[in-house]
Amino acid sequence: MTRAFSPALALSAGEPAGIGPDVALAAWLRREEHQLPPFFITGDAELLRARAAHLGLAVPVVACTPEDAAAHFATALPVVPTGPAATAAPGRPDASSAPAARAAIDTAVGLVQAGRAAAIVTNPISKAVLYAAGFSFPGHTEYLAHLSGDPAPRPVMMIWSPELAVVPATIHVPLAEVPHLFSRELLVETARITARDLTRRFGIAAPRLAICGLNPHAGEEGTLGLEDEIVTRPAVEALRQEGIDARGPLPADTLFHAAARKTYDVAIGAYHDQVLAPVKALAFDRAVNVTLGLPFVRTSPDHGTAFDIAGTGRADPSSLIEALRLARRLADRDRAASAARLPA
Amino acid sequence: MTRAFSPALALSAGEPAGIGPDVALAAWLRREEHQLPPFFITGDAELLRARAAHLGLAVPVVACTPEDAAAHFATALPVVPTGPAATAAPGRPDASSAPAARAAIDTAVGLVQAGRAAAIVTNPISKAVLYAAGFSFPGHTEYLAHLSGDPAPRPVMMIWSPELAVVPATIHVPLAEVPHLFSRELLVETARITARDLTRRFGIAAPRLAICGLNPHAGEEGTLGLEDEIVTRPAVEALRQEGIDARGPLPADTLFHAAARKTYDVAIGAYHDQVLAPVKALAFDRAVNVTLGLPFVRTSPDHGTAFDIAGTGRADPSSLIEALRLARRLADRDRAASAARLPA
Repeated sequence: MTRAFSPALALSAGEPAGIGPDVALAAWLRREEHQLPPFFITGDAELLRARAAHLGLAVPVVACTPEDAAAHFATALPVVPTGPAATAAPGRPDASSAPAARAAIDTAVGLVQAGRAAAIVTNPISKAVLYAAGFSFPGHTEYLAHLSGDPAPRPVMMIWSPELAVVPATIHVPLAEVPHLFSRELLVETARITARDLTRRFGIAAPRLAICGLNPHAGEEGTLGLEDEIVTRPAVEALRQEGIDARGPLPADTLFHAAARKTYDVAIGAYHDQVLAPVKALAFDRAVNVTLGLPFVRTSPDHGTAFDIAGTGRADPSSLIEALRLARRLADRDRAASAARLPA
Repeated sequence: MTRAFSPALALSAGEPAGIGPDVALAAWLRREEHQLPPFFITGDAELLRARAAHLGLAVPVVACTPEDAAAHFATALPVVPTGPAATAAPGRPDASSAPAARAAIDTAVGLVQAGRAAAIVTNPISKAVLYAAGFSFPGHTEYLAHLSGDPAPRPVMMIWSPELAVVPATIHVPLAEVPHLFSRELLVETARITARDLTRRFGIAAPRLAICGLNPHAGEEGTLGLEDEIVTRPAVEALRQEGIDARGPLPADTLFHAAARKTYDVAIGAYHDQVLAPVKALAFDRAVNVTLGLPFVRTSPDHGTAFDIAGTGRADPSSLIEALRLARRLADRDRAASAARLPA
């Protein structure tokens, strides 16, 4: 079996002053209950020991190599040390936070590229902290894309849950900019990357894509805005001509009830709230952020650093647990698909 | 008890070629199962008899006065005749559709204004059909506002379900226009009307209003658009100074999961899909459209004419059933509140 030789998952530690350490510790404690795949943290073992003590959690932390992580996983939380010590207290990022968070990501990416990690799961970072330290990427995902190739591949954000998977074509931009950014090229490229990864990593041979209209009621044939006639409809046509099973423009408000969800594998929205509000309404604790389009599998819990509850024991590890489980599933599928393509 | 003297509900027939007649017949058949309050249809009794025959439904239709409707309701579907005969076949509106649909609305409004109907429930109309016949109002709701006073009151659309109630501040406009229409005055006025009707008709003494930001993440303190700092936040402040329990700007994507929904009575969104996508994801079949701000109670099923399934027997009466039940509840509360305000 492929699985026996597959390396463990790398979980980048994230912002040390946030809830990343808290949820990593909590997830490890529930490893049997949730049949968690073995993972190791790229980060600072001392910080994790200190957080476990602070939270009163009996979690032995072991520093080890990626190759030894799986063997340790049953009895200790494996940490692959990344160099910079993280001294930040819960909720109070300090000067150590940025180099520690960045080194955790760099190490995780290096390991997955070297075949020493099966996939990357990333704990949340604080963009404000990183920007103050000179970080110049729009976000976590763009930095991962930068590290993963030259030219950097175009990453696509999917929010996945057992109930619903969605992809917003535009993401963290003011609403007023959405109509200007919304183009046929953007939609087609987003849908293509989505369809490819749904096949390669989710094992869906012919993914069904539901494409939302930009306007309410998908523009009602142009009476509520022309974009869905001049952008969305031609984009869907172009995708269909490429053999991709895309449908649209579809009114977003009637696309997310149970019967409608059975008709597609992913809904591609025009903008953030159009698709993230429904998926989080349906599956708040179980939603996972998956980055499509990268040369490796990357998932992350769908929450931020939550400085206000870091170190309190109130952070919920559900999303991280789902992110770890999904990363394993996608990595195994990706590996099997690659093996099938290569000569034996 | 007030209830004993309360008149029945008026259900305007809506577009005769749509599913309005179908769902009215189906709802009446389930009157005992759902403990439906007595209602009468304002419309054409012959059309309803013909549709019942077409659908193979054993529904006796009786033409009567509003005052006799309740007594007939147990054994027949009461119809208060409105004049114009409707000759349209299912799915095929003809020249009779517009005058019939309009007369049904006019009659229902006249009856509720005269105290001969407790509230109005409206079946869907076809704007295209009415426009072709010279109708000049943006929609059903604006026409009802026009009929209900001079100057016409400002109506506010709420989508209500047992799980979640939402109000979009802007509704059927292109997304590109939303940032221009989104103003402090619009938000404050919408929230005021909402709060007043939640108290008067829903019986919530101090309604809790959650106000969504226009931008993703409610603008992240201005980094994702300034509107939530210069419009939403001052609007919420102004509302609070009036004694209205408003909170915001809140990120829409994290506002609709079960735990978040417990913290407010209604979510006011900036635009259509931001709040309608989540409420229909959670409660598609049970969502009811309620018009706030009118001098009478008006609800409607949250679907359109559905010409494609009219006359097939596939139309689902669930939303109409919820609309009838909610109209009764709101009318009784409104009546009780008015009685309490008036000298005995």
